[in-house]
Amino acid sequence: MKIMNQVNSPQDLKGLSREELKELAAEIREAIIRRVDNIGGHLGSNLGAVEAEIALHYVFDSPKDKIVFDVSHQCYPHKALTGRREFLEEGTYRKYIGFTDHRESPHDSFSVGHTSTSVSLASGLAKARDLKGTSENVIAFLGDGSLSGGEAFEGLDYVAEMGTNFIVVFNDNEMSIAEPHGGIYKNINELRRTNGTCELNLFRAIGFDYRYVEEGNNIDALIEAFAAVKDIDHPVVVHIHTEKGLGSDWAVKDKEPGHYGMPKSFKPSGNKGSNEYTREFLEAKAAADPTVCVINAATPSAFGMNKAWRDRMGRQFVDVGIAEEHAVAMISGMAKGGAKPVFVVNGTFLQRTYDQLMQDLALNENPAVILVFGAGIGTGDPTHNGTQIGSLLANIPGIMAFAPSNIDDYLALLDWAIEQTETPVVIHVPGAFPKNGPAVNPAEAIRYQVTKSGSQVALIGFGNAYRLAEATAETLRGNGIESTVIDPVIYSAVDTATIDGLLSDHKVIVTIEDNQKDGGFGEKIASYLGAKDVRVLNYGAAKENVCNEPRDIVMKRYRMTPEQIAEDVLGVL
Amino acid sequence: MKIMNQVNSPQDLKGLSREELKELAAEIREAIIRRVDNIGGHLGSNLGAVEAEIALHYVFDSPKDKIVFDVSHQCYPHKALTGRREFLEEGTYRKYIGFTDHRESPHDSFSVGHTSTSVSLASGLAKARDLKGTSENVIAFLGDGSLSGGEAFEGLDYVAEMGTNFIVVFNDNEMSIAEPHGGIYKNINELRRTNGTCELNLFRAIGFDYRYVEEGNNIDALIEAFAAVKDIDHPVVVHIHTEKGLGSDWAVKDKEPGHYGMPKSFKPSGNKGSNEYTREFLEAKAAADPTVCVINAATPSAFGMNKAWRDRMGRQFVDVGIAEEHAVAMISGMAKGGAKPVFVVNGTFLQRTYDQLMQDLALNENPAVILVFGAGIGTGDPTHNGTQIGSLLANIPGIMAFAPSNIDDYLALLDWAIEQTETPVVIHVPGAFPKNGPAVNPAEAIRYQVTKSGSQVALIGFGNAYRLAEATAETLRGNGIESTVIDPVIYSAVDTATIDGLLSDHKVIVTIEDNQKDGGFGEKIASYLGAKDVRVLNYGAAKENVCNEPRDIVMKRYRMTPEQIAEDVLGVL
Repeated sequence: MKIMNQVNSPQDLKGLSREELKELAAEIREAIIRRVDNIGGHLGSNLGAVEAEIALHYVFDSPKDKIVFDVSHQCYPHKALTGRREFLEEGTYRKYIGFTDHRESPHDSFSVGHTSTSVSLASGLAKARDLKGTSENVIAFLGDGSLSGGEAFEGLDYVAEMGTNFIVVFNDNEMSIAEPHGGIYKNINELRRTNGTCELNLFRAIGFDYRYVEEGNNIDALIEAFAAVKDIDHPVVVHIHTEKGLGSDWAVKDKEPGHYGMPKSFKPSGNKGSNEYTREFLEAKAAADPTVCVINAATPSAFGMNKAWRDRMGRQFVDVGIAEEHAVAMISGMAKGGAKPVFVVNGTFLQRTYDQLMQDLALNENPAVILVFGAGIGTGDPTHNGTQIGSLLANIPGIMAFAPSNIDDYLALLDWAIEQTETPVVIHVPGAFPKNGPAVNPAEAIRYQVTKSGSQVALIGFGNAYRLAEATAETLRGNGIESTVIDPVIYSAVDTATIDGLLSDHKVIVTIEDNQKDGGFGEKIASYLGAKDVRVLNYGAAKENVCNEPRDIVMKRYRMTPEQIAEDVLGVL
Repeated sequence: MKIMNQVNSPQDLKGLSREELKELAAEIREAIIRRVDNIGGHLGSNLGAVEAEIALHYVFDSPKDKIVFDVSHQCYPHKALTGRREFLEEGTYRKYIGFTDHRESPHDSFSVGHTSTSVSLASGLAKARDLKGTSENVIAFLGDGSLSGGEAFEGLDYVAEMGTNFIVVFNDNEMSIAEPHGGIYKNINELRRTNGTCELNLFRAIGFDYRYVEEGNNIDALIEAFAAVKDIDHPVVVHIHTEKGLGSDWAVKDKEPGHYGMPKSFKPSGNKGSNEYTREFLEAKAAADPTVCVINAATPSAFGMNKAWRDRMGRQFVDVGIAEEHAVAMISGMAKGGAKPVFVVNGTFLQRTYDQLMQDLALNENPAVILVFGAGIGTGDPTHNGTQIGSLLANIPGIMAFAPSNIDDYLALLDWAIEQTETPVVIHVPGAFPKNGPAVNPAEAIRYQVTKSGSQVALIGFGNAYRLAEATAETLRGNGIESTVIDPVIYSAVDTATIDGLLSDHKVIVTIEDNQKDGGFGEKIASYLGAKDVRVLNYGAAKENVCNEPRDIVMKRYRMTPEQIAEDVLGVL
């Protein structure tokens, strides 16, 4: 790492020779591979962009010039070049997060982890520049399938009209996270095939000037291309053709799994996970009914829906690309048309579709099904936490939102949800806790399950927090209290009959949710009981953005341990 | 109306001669103008589409063939042709709503009022058709600026890859609601100029086949074009060039105000409204500071920001077109870049940006300002109600959301919000209730205003519901109770000091909000006080979609009258 160690800021690149820049690229590539081998991380997306990021920092003057990364899971080289090479050094890998972070460095204008945002964010920097009368370059570094997201298109459409300096670097590695989907990629292919010369050109049709760089991993070619557009007086797209995963044999050969690498020490548990239960169920369901169809937005591998599984599903699996809004509207149409759509999605990305959930789906009363993965109190990067999705879903009229506590109830609910014809249904996928058959009766959807009858104290825990309710009951038993324990299963509605039934012999009602407290399930119970002579204690995450804190610390801060909850209960009894 | 009266379903069109179809168009046009003169409504958008909708129903076989309208404020002719001509007849105008409604007719596949959704919704119908193996045509009728919305692009991108029957009718009237914005409209202009023949073609670049019809108000040309694509085996765009407002001299001449007409009986009150207070304030602010910039997404006239006002603002006003997501990301970037952006938007459309509010803006802690108009319990069309926006905004970490009760507090807050550099701020614009100077102290943002000190009962009402709290206090005074009255101003946070201070001498705490109860402000108070010996009563809208119910009926159902609230309070005292 002899050159990397000399680079403390982008300014240090300016004095390097071309040969040294190439050597630096090799060093960074090697360091990225080692980092991923050690602790896991985004591999292919970063390896393909090493030369482009070196060339950008060589040509432009960050942080005066602004480089805004899309998704930002391609920012590892940028971090190493902007005073944060510890990010790529053993022992200090976790000093910085794996995405750009506005608090980390003046070279990171924004904290970003959702896709398709860079052009719009950067357009604001450009507009501020124009209002202030300064003259820095503004660069949006787009790629990895982000182009299909609606926000990116809205941004491009606006920027094309701006008429001042704006540079979009379109990092085209021929991939999204999986293979790219959507009609535009045909035109992108044609642009590559013709070395950027074909008349039909999506970017020009949107109103941009356009340049093409075939050798997107060639530092000389990139420097030449970026230097040519530096200080340009109008919006331009620089389309660079890169190789995803370059430098890692397996990541090049198998680009979809190569997008994100697990550490070498990683061993699958061998236990059957929720993903596998889900895949098996959906595949069997699809085989039995040709109108069952699974929809996903560009992240099938996150659910283990690999190529072989997708091929078996055939036209009963649809990857719409990075286009979550479209996915929700589409499943509404599918359900209206008599098909049985199931949209599988991470909670953090479902957030992108509030209006589609409400207007396109719920208002239209179409019986589509959404399976939410990764919902719950997140303590990792705040761009990928599922802490708020329950608060979003609990408050949209016409959506029934469930969070079963175990696999058996989950699959029973899923089967019912697919077959019913009345209402949109959202189900949080629980951890892989099987039981001896389902307890839930989906036909009676708004009916909390009283799993243990007691008195004085009732503990209501939904989804993955149900086990915390059970553990708290155990702790209270040590204090001589036999609590009632309830698995509500549904969290978007109050089962008033069950709650009313508690009032005669319970003094404290506790809600525990694996979700933000604000806007969540517990507040509904507190509100419903506001006029009653009973104490209500709500537990859930605070309304805050958590960033890479250990889970046990966070949960203690929220007083979400059996001991803390029991202590609070005893305090108000 | 001799021909219109014979049309009871689209089947009745099939036997009409071309001359009769043209006569029918004239009759429908006349009826639309009369309807708008009588009760107001969307004028220009419908007048331009009369021939296209007649031709569609003449060529295709609805409801077997599916015609999905975008925005659906252009569906008046369609309603008249599908068994609902009472919609255009005096005395029964209000029998049907002004948008498509899935409960009204099998010819309306969806309830739609937000833009840019038709392609995605229709793609679901097409996918269901393909899974079921049936063969109906699926048509998305897009237009009026909807093309710039990201959801439309996501839909087009997906559909281009489908490879089966799909017909997009792009109704190009050279307008959005105001003039269209965005780079794509340059290409649309060029397509018109070249009679659809230019090589550079946005739709082909996305992957569609393409046809152009210059005479989009000529029934013969339209029938020919639609017949040529009927039963087509791949996705095609039929680009029709229509004239917005055709048949109404003023709506043609002045297309922006002509988009929506007020009834002839309408007389402006002459009182200064919230729009005017806002415009005056922003214009003065912009004149004093070149970095202040007002952003809007295609609906400036809704806030009285007409052409003259926009021209005076110059580059300190930006209309991004129908692209709300872009607008929120862009203001985040602008604030980051040191400008002072103010996004003016209707609450129902701000819903479209949940993820941008949370990720692009709040997580990045950028001090942009959003002014929300039309927030509050809506009782009109559920596609345009502002009932839920408070529940959305109250639960996003890092957003401060205010709902002042009067103009003086509002303008003081707005001024503070523009100048502060710490946090994104959202302010609901109140009704035009001036006071004698502001009472709010923005420097102490989370500090509820105790406007009247009393005991036993505290009434907390925010925004436009504050006056309901005052009226309830009056009613309770008749019962010998001197209540405390509180204007919290902020609704996204609990002022624990003020609330704790109530506990010693108040037995009942009442929250009243002009918003949905679920996920709202009141539930936070109920949750905060759950463990305390005090009764809490929350008032707000139920979690339901209201559709054109009289406001007083709805408010009574929610027990939101001073008498009902007082009765409830006395019941628990």
